[in-house]
Amino acid sequence: MTPYSCMTRQQLEAEHAKVLAQYQHVKDQKLNLNMARGKPAKAQLDLVSDILTVLQTPEDCFDGDIDSRNYGELAGLPCARAYWADVLECKPENIFVGGAASLNMMCDIVSRAFTHGLLGSPQPWCKEEKVKFLCPAPGYDRHFQIGEFYGAELIYIPMTPTGPDMDMVEEYVKDPQVKMIWVVPKYSNPDGIIFSDETIQRFANLKPAAPDFAIIWDNAYCIHEFEGDYVPFPDIISMCEEAGRPNMVFEFASTSKITFAGGGTSCMAASVANIQYFTGVFGVQMISYDKVNQLRHVKYMKNKAYTLEIMKRHASVMAPKFHCVSRWLNQEIKPLGFARWVDPKGGYFISLYTMPGTAKRTWSLCREAGVVLTTAGAAYPYSHNPNDDHLRIAPSLPPVEDLEKAMEVLTISLKLAALEKLLEK
Amino acid sequence: MTPYSCMTRQQLEAEHAKVLAQYQHVKDQKLNLNMARGKPAKAQLDLVSDILTVLQTPEDCFDGDIDSRNYGELAGLPCARAYWADVLECKPENIFVGGAASLNMMCDIVSRAFTHGLLGSPQPWCKEEKVKFLCPAPGYDRHFQIGEFYGAELIYIPMTPTGPDMDMVEEYVKDPQVKMIWVVPKYSNPDGIIFSDETIQRFANLKPAAPDFAIIWDNAYCIHEFEGDYVPFPDIISMCEEAGRPNMVFEFASTSKITFAGGGTSCMAASVANIQYFTGVFGVQMISYDKVNQLRHVKYMKNKAYTLEIMKRHASVMAPKFHCVSRWLNQEIKPLGFARWVDPKGGYFISLYTMPGTAKRTWSLCREAGVVLTTAGAAYPYSHNPNDDHLRIAPSLPPVEDLEKAMEVLTISLKLAALEKLLEK
Repeated sequence: MTPYSCMTRQQLEAEHAKVLAQYQHVKDQKLNLNMARGKPAKAQLDLVSDILTVLQTPEDCFDGDIDSRNYGELAGLPCARAYWADVLECKPENIFVGGAASLNMMCDIVSRAFTHGLLGSPQPWCKEEKVKFLCPAPGYDRHFQIGEFYGAELIYIPMTPTGPDMDMVEEYVKDPQVKMIWVVPKYSNPDGIIFSDETIQRFANLKPAAPDFAIIWDNAYCIHEFEGDYVPFPDIISMCEEAGRPNMVFEFASTSKITFAGGGTSCMAASVANIQYFTGVFGVQMISYDKVNQLRHVKYMKNKAYTLEIMKRHASVMAPKFHCVSRWLNQEIKPLGFARWVDPKGGYFISLYTMPGTAKRTWSLCREAGVVLTTAGAAYPYSHNPNDDHLRIAPSLPPVEDLEKAMEVLTISLKLAALEKLLEK
Repeated sequence: MTPYSCMTRQQLEAEHAKVLAQYQHVKDQKLNLNMARGKPAKAQLDLVSDILTVLQTPEDCFDGDIDSRNYGELAGLPCARAYWADVLECKPENIFVGGAASLNMMCDIVSRAFTHGLLGSPQPWCKEEKVKFLCPAPGYDRHFQIGEFYGAELIYIPMTPTGPDMDMVEEYVKDPQVKMIWVVPKYSNPDGIIFSDETIQRFANLKPAAPDFAIIWDNAYCIHEFEGDYVPFPDIISMCEEAGRPNMVFEFASTSKITFAGGGTSCMAASVANIQYFTGVFGVQMISYDKVNQLRHVKYMKNKAYTLEIMKRHASVMAPKFHCVSRWLNQEIKPLGFARWVDPKGGYFISLYTMPGTAKRTWSLCREAGVVLTTAGAAYPYSHNPNDDHLRIAPSLPPVEDLEKAMEVLTISLKLAALEKLLEK
């Protein structure tokens, strides 16, 4: 196959005619496939459904003397705090165990920052003239939505293969209006990269002008390898402590992609001072989170070592899907030279960089042919990708046979959008 | 027994010596009993623990086509919305099913009212010069705490035997700074009364000056009779709709005292417009609440009729405790004529009105003798009871044999505090 960039106009026109015919053909199949969100597949949910029967009797419901069925223990059951400390390699006193969604705790922190302030805030953020959030992108759309909801100015920081552009981050945090940065440090959403040790160290060493600057360290895929063994990852809590700013970071993790996305449990890791502060703050809204589910999860997942075995089972479902995506792209797109992507070894997404100016068109072509992808640009602040060159692929939900069809549609759409672009000049 | 008010000083002194000796005696027993919070007893949790094994297989986890284990259905599983509509006698489209705590949703509503506003708000409440909440008292301390946390001015409205003083409420809502009122309309916390039909109708007919005035209708004990049959209760949602202000009311209920206080599920009932508005607002913080637990609950509680049977089982544990409290008060205090209380037929609390100026002293005497009650005054805004005459008794947690001891301590402490007061004059 000749790269598109080496084709003559005549060749491009011939290619366009061919690809258009292919597109018409797949469109006629009237598919209805969804790769929009990072949802676990039914097969994954089935293979962890033994968790349903872990707790059977009243006696099963105790963590030591504590009856999980009753009120109390706002910061979480001791066994659940110990479990997450094991997974994240911090201390149990650094852990607050919440409800079904870590996103809810992130939003609560932003909400209370605006109405009351964080530890060290000179005043509630709503009293500030302006509040700015740094948003490495492509990133997680729901992070950006929270910032936008609270009226923060979202500042785009480009991602690099080792993490966010740290030169820019270090420069921006000199501005006291810059109050937060949001990142997924391991198997980042959607690039699937792992932040380098240097990047992580530079995060811990940040010296922001704002005394209440906060890093939202959303470690959503902390143990979510689908290829190869678990990759060790530094404990950002102790690193920030050692660097002299223990209260600067809030780390999050959840079981949404370990057990049930629709019925899991979540945790926040932070300095002891922050855990105390937010136990007080959350005490206004909650008597206690769902401790029965916390206990059910701890008894099922046991410890980090055993949870990694559970993750291997997920990997057996996930890996073939990522391989399918990779195979189609390598076979159909790579020789044509107009797009690039990363092959991650963990997480839930693949970033696909299309020919600039064609991501939206590719998305529309897919949709018209019955394949729904995450909206083009959604991974950028204000859903605005200046280059219009990014699509997020979420291959986890459909079975492989559906994914094969979806990837055929996607690769044809990619080509068609690129050819349209090249021919319009 | 002679009422204290009819005793001579000499008689009072003799009585004081006798009661003081009794107090020393009970103090020497070094009790450690807690009647501070409305926690269900272990016996209650045990009798509903069959809920643990309601869901056993992947197939059990579906509500129609919807897999409760995966993301989606932010407003709740259809079966859970239908269940709560049955209990509260409204429509499923009026229901939003949340997480473990209804308090969390109430706080979310206040939080978003301050940062963004409610439907119909001219501006976010944080932009208002002042925001006032009406707080019928004695009431639920955690309601008042939320208002205080967000800086609202709390206005004390006295409770009457038929509900809040509605003349005062109707007068106060003419002030556009008055934005909310918080009530527990059935088996009120802590008086245990049921609002009269007239009171409820006057609530629905309120014509507040603030276009975004909201009634927080915390129907926490909607089916929580422990004596006699279920008492029907009007649907405030349709009543406000009929009165022309459908968006004025937010009703709440939960399973915290039906299944597990530490692992239940909750709901909000409101106008369809409010449900849509808050589904959008909550969509910023949540992908979905714990639907597995929603389904587990619906399969266990089935419908209103069957849930009332479950409540009869709870009643068999609760009633003897309330009877114990009542018996001690009737026997030891009633003839002395210096205190009053209500004997409720549902809910979790008894309001005990001590001799004015002695509630705090009674509380301290109990504490010194090893019996912890809810802090005196806690049921009033800012924890300030102007008459210092109220204690909330929460008899649900201790077994009856412990309660007997606790009531002995309480009745002795009540007498001692009253005698000290009478003798200091």
